[in-house]
Amino acid sequence: MSNTTAATQFLEVSGLRYAYRRIGKGPGLPLLCLQHFTGTLDNWDPAVTDPLASGRDVILFENAGVGRSTGDVPPTITAMTGHALAFLDGLGVETCDVLGFSLGGMIAQQMAQDRPSIIRRMILVGTAPRGGEDIMHLEKPSLAKHIQDPQNRGYAVLQKIFFAPTPTSQAAGAAFIARLMQRKDDREPPAGPNVAGAQLAAFREWERFTGQRFADLKGIRHPTLVVQGFHDEMIPVRNSYWLGENLPNAVLLVYPDAGHGSLFQYAESFTRHAAAFLSSTSVPAAL
Amino acid sequence: MSNTTAATQFLEVSGLRYAYRRIGKGPGLPLLCLQHFTGTLDNWDPAVTDPLASGRDVILFENAGVGRSTGDVPPTITAMTGHALAFLDGLGVETCDVLGFSLGGMIAQQMAQDRPSIIRRMILVGTAPRGGEDIMHLEKPSLAKHIQDPQNRGYAVLQKIFFAPTPTSQAAGAAFIARLMQRKDDREPPAGPNVAGAQLAAFREWERFTGQRFADLKGIRHPTLVVQGFHDEMIPVRNSYWLGENLPNAVLLVYPDAGHGSLFQYAESFTRHAAAFLSSTSVPAAL
Repeated sequence: MSNTTAATQFLEVSGLRYAYRRIGKGPGLPLLCLQHFTGTLDNWDPAVTDPLASGRDVILFENAGVGRSTGDVPPTITAMTGHALAFLDGLGVETCDVLGFSLGGMIAQQMAQDRPSIIRRMILVGTAPRGGEDIMHLEKPSLAKHIQDPQNRGYAVLQKIFFAPTPTSQAAGAAFIARLMQRKDDREPPAGPNVAGAQLAAFREWERFTGQRFADLKGIRHPTLVVQGFHDEMIPVRNSYWLGENLPNAVLLVYPDAGHGSLFQYAESFTRHAAAFLSSTSVPAAL
Repeated sequence: MSNTTAATQFLEVSGLRYAYRRIGKGPGLPLLCLQHFTGTLDNWDPAVTDPLASGRDVILFENAGVGRSTGDVPPTITAMTGHALAFLDGLGVETCDVLGFSLGGMIAQQMAQDRPSIIRRMILVGTAPRGGEDIMHLEKPSLAKHIQDPQNRGYAVLQKIFFAPTPTSQAAGAAFIARLMQRKDDREPPAGPNVAGAQLAAFREWERFTGQRFADLKGIRHPTLVVQGFHDEMIPVRNSYWLGENLPNAVLLVYPDAGHGSLFQYAESFTRHAAAFLSSTSVPAAL
């Protein structure tokens, strides 16, 4: 089974219909995968999902209002987290591991806060804690120049903004795009401006904090693997430093020559470490 | 062969006598190990040296004026680097890998600057770039309270200042001390105040920089693995962030619940990753 061919499924919960895909099997706990800004189920790189699916049930979740999931995209991480929990409840999953990428990593953290028992281990990639900085400011020149360039259409933008501006990273980006395009049928509709607008509002709200900065992280005891690229322009790497320094039980891995899409650029290394981390029972978390 | 039992050897070069040990064999390049502040050959944890020696020739080097190496401890990293290069030349090693811990990591970086051809891959643990901050300020309260406590004698100080103040990390520290004490014979004399004074002067000099901060790192192309503990009080982890961000080809691994001695606390994980990194030919560096 591969995310290139897995059928999109639908789950009805409280009048909403969530789209999802489920691939793989094995002895591991289910792994819930939470997607990035404007990403749909089709944005999950099979080079990441498929190796992980060889040891466990990998569940790709489409949050409300994205792709073929109904409802509105909420303007807060907290409300998006409510949808993720409702989806797991509807599916009958009581405990799972979570891979949250970017926006998805924020939802994973909020899940760990709101219902600690539903998560065993977390993998947070290219994301930021509440109170983090410079989260998805698409208006800044280093990102705007790619997003507003009329030469960059569709996936070509992703290659520019998810990968570092080096030949090696851009080549990895091209390979990533080619892998996404392998899926021909049963594709999700791309996200439009309404999705982007609400998700950007959620990022702005996530940058705010009250009380002592990052104090909320100290209560998240889940073993956590934090991953990022040193040259992430969308969510700078210092946000992962803060995660690692304040989560009591997190190991940090940062890749060179990589931007926001480090997990796709280093898919072999990332999935090897992710699988080892999920299989490990060591506390404190180690790779 | 183990550092618990390996005989100390001596090499005469230009009127000086360097103490060293050499353990292991295998297909890998020799691995030169450069030691921390006031550490001697006896401070190399067999849980780190011995697994690495199963695949390669591991060379533990005692810099000038330390242990039974003759000469004076130089007050600069540059001069210490000269001794390391003279030692390798005397031994006939033209290219090697280097594991530099703390002070040793600074010498490794200077070697890469002064003679790039002598290094293939570097592992830098608990160290700092030139221009780094808060490098071994033993006078600060968080360190001085342990160093000046009369209850802490000999290796007991190391357990306090190399490990985090948690039960798990302190237990790992006690196990580390027990491993160091397994070596009964042919031990090096402990470093005295003259060694400490000159090495501290070298740290102060290493904190200074001219021109653009960290610009010198951009010329070091060697694949590098940077490792640290999040709770390192002796050389704070932000120094490893700067290494990773400015070295063009470095991957970063930071352990939770660990201080300066992260490589000893996580010896199994560290040696597994170090061996994989040294065996890898991938560029950019990845684990």
